[in-house]
Amino acid sequence: MTTTTSAIAAAAPGGPLAPTTIERRDLRPDDVLIDIAYAGICHSDLHQVHQDWGTAIFPMVPGHEIAGVVAAVGSDVTKYQVGDRVGVGCMVDSCGECEYCRAGSEQFCVKGNVQTYNGVGFDGENTYGGYSKQIVVKDAFVCRIPEGISLDIAAPLLCAGITTYSPLRRWGAGPGKKVAVVGLGGLGHMAVKLAVAMGADVTVLSQSLKKQEDGLRLGAKDYYATSDESTFEALAGQFDVILNTVSAKLPVDAYLSLLRVGGAMVNVGAPGEPLEYNVFSLLGGNRVLAGSMIGGIAETQEMLDFCAEHGVGAEIETISADQVNEAYARVENSDVRYRFVIDTSTIG
Amino acid sequence: MTTTTSAIAAAAPGGPLAPTTIERRDLRPDDVLIDIAYAGICHSDLHQVHQDWGTAIFPMVPGHEIAGVVAAVGSDVTKYQVGDRVGVGCMVDSCGECEYCRAGSEQFCVKGNVQTYNGVGFDGENTYGGYSKQIVVKDAFVCRIPEGISLDIAAPLLCAGITTYSPLRRWGAGPGKKVAVVGLGGLGHMAVKLAVAMGADVTVLSQSLKKQEDGLRLGAKDYYATSDESTFEALAGQFDVILNTVSAKLPVDAYLSLLRVGGAMVNVGAPGEPLEYNVFSLLGGNRVLAGSMIGGIAETQEMLDFCAEHGVGAEIETISADQVNEAYARVENSDVRYRFVIDTSTIG
Repeated sequence: MTTTTSAIAAAAPGGPLAPTTIERRDLRPDDVLIDIAYAGICHSDLHQVHQDWGTAIFPMVPGHEIAGVVAAVGSDVTKYQVGDRVGVGCMVDSCGECEYCRAGSEQFCVKGNVQTYNGVGFDGENTYGGYSKQIVVKDAFVCRIPEGISLDIAAPLLCAGITTYSPLRRWGAGPGKKVAVVGLGGLGHMAVKLAVAMGADVTVLSQSLKKQEDGLRLGAKDYYATSDESTFEALAGQFDVILNTVSAKLPVDAYLSLLRVGGAMVNVGAPGEPLEYNVFSLLGGNRVLAGSMIGGIAETQEMLDFCAEHGVGAEIETISADQVNEAYARVENSDVRYRFVIDTSTIG
Repeated sequence: MTTTTSAIAAAAPGGPLAPTTIERRDLRPDDVLIDIAYAGICHSDLHQVHQDWGTAIFPMVPGHEIAGVVAAVGSDVTKYQVGDRVGVGCMVDSCGECEYCRAGSEQFCVKGNVQTYNGVGFDGENTYGGYSKQIVVKDAFVCRIPEGISLDIAAPLLCAGITTYSPLRRWGAGPGKKVAVVGLGGLGHMAVKLAVAMGADVTVLSQSLKKQEDGLRLGAKDYYATSDESTFEALAGQFDVILNTVSAKLPVDAYLSLLRVGGAMVNVGAPGEPLEYNVFSLLGGNRVLAGSMIGGIAETQEMLDFCAEHGVGAEIETISADQVNEAYARVENSDVRYRFVIDTSTIG
């Protein structure tokens, strides 16, 4: 038994995206049915549609930045009630038993987490994402969106928010710490807002000064162009944390030289080609190069609560269903400040 | 005013090393005169003599693994008395005022620390190292060698010991943690002994199984050959910490795949050429690549105390002054188990 719902799907690799209908499973005892209100467009949605990361499943309904309202709950669900404001991010299931699941790092489940779309559930069924009017998700993978953040600016927190929140926390962004955010896009603008809310002193490192005004408005103290070589001299040895949100092939050693002793450069974006570094860049100053991938469910909830408390949401441009292909083209050209959010009431 | 002492020096780049005499400064109020008993031969001594790391100062008296006995103290010295057993490592001075010096990370002094040899002191005088019968060192850069470690096996702790102790501590080696040590040489054998003493479960990753028996005798639970590709499958995702003590150009991604979620690969050796890595190797598992350079003075003392408490010393082969050139050739060929120590009573 299933329920039919309207969605926007890519029928084949490369798109375009077009209206369609998909089936959502009937509620299991631990399931939550969500009326989706908004779905963010993440750059990874484009990569998946274009199969940049390997063979994908089509038709594909992208979307893992989902905000909405509970429409029904399964018989065993006690955590959520009809009418609750909730969100869903990049995962909808994991084994729940391995050491990483038990430690709250479901994204690293040894059996592999089930991706919100372009995934296959433990029941063998393909998953379809948030560009849709409804979704059914296991309660353990649903987060609460606190009052005080509207659903539209909350949606991007479910991926862009947690992706930047988790490494900022792990690597100690906070009062007295200097944080550099590389790139002011979907991830970067969230990183700036979150690091500022954590009390850190934030600098944006962007290719050009085009978005300088925005960066400062979002709370950054400084804004430098990395195309200007003097930037690397001026900022040598200054940062406790560099959060690299871009997927370009950066000169790693030059960025490492901006770290203080013991500082960490954390990558949340990844270029397809390998990067080069000189080990002396790490030795000289006990420096760290790290990676970070989204965050677990409990940490995602913590991030949402933090955002509500500090009034942090994404900077968005809301679009209707018929503008999705145009939005994809603009994301490809970095022409968005800073996240497209689909008003899912316009679907179907 | 100076005092003449016997030493072994390289007169010019490339060596050979030969007996000579050098001058040591008269004691300043905060100086300690040390009768050197033993000086370890560190692989970096060879690099310095061969100018592998840039133009060096000649004549050069290498040696930054120094153990001996206090022979005299300056008028303001209260920490040491004649007869005290003491050691000196890689540094003999730093500014003492910058944030890193104040934090006990003198090796990262913003004015640059003064290296024990091949350095220039703040007085403008060249420094000469431990292949010598006496040395004069500022008291703040002298460590106490506790009773219970003999001076010969203590000498290598001043560089090889602290170089491996510091990252093992920072990255959490201890009970319940799995540590891999890459390479079983001068640094690697210390890393094994220290990580075992810290309570970690230790595996050696060596090119071949030639030193397997030694590795297990030093306390490692497992020993794998990295030339065997199945090693990387067998050990995937197992280690909390990988301490890489070799200076070869390793396949970084393959080693990162051996880390658990959140695990760190720390480099204490550095190849001259850049290394390549794929950022996905860091993202998948929130992994860390780090570097570590010796340790501060307080941490060096902590390490010596730890070694005394746990009965840890270097595995050494003691040589006389006239064997130094032969020893250098053997170090070049990795033919030493595991550290040459010069009996400085044989100098001059």
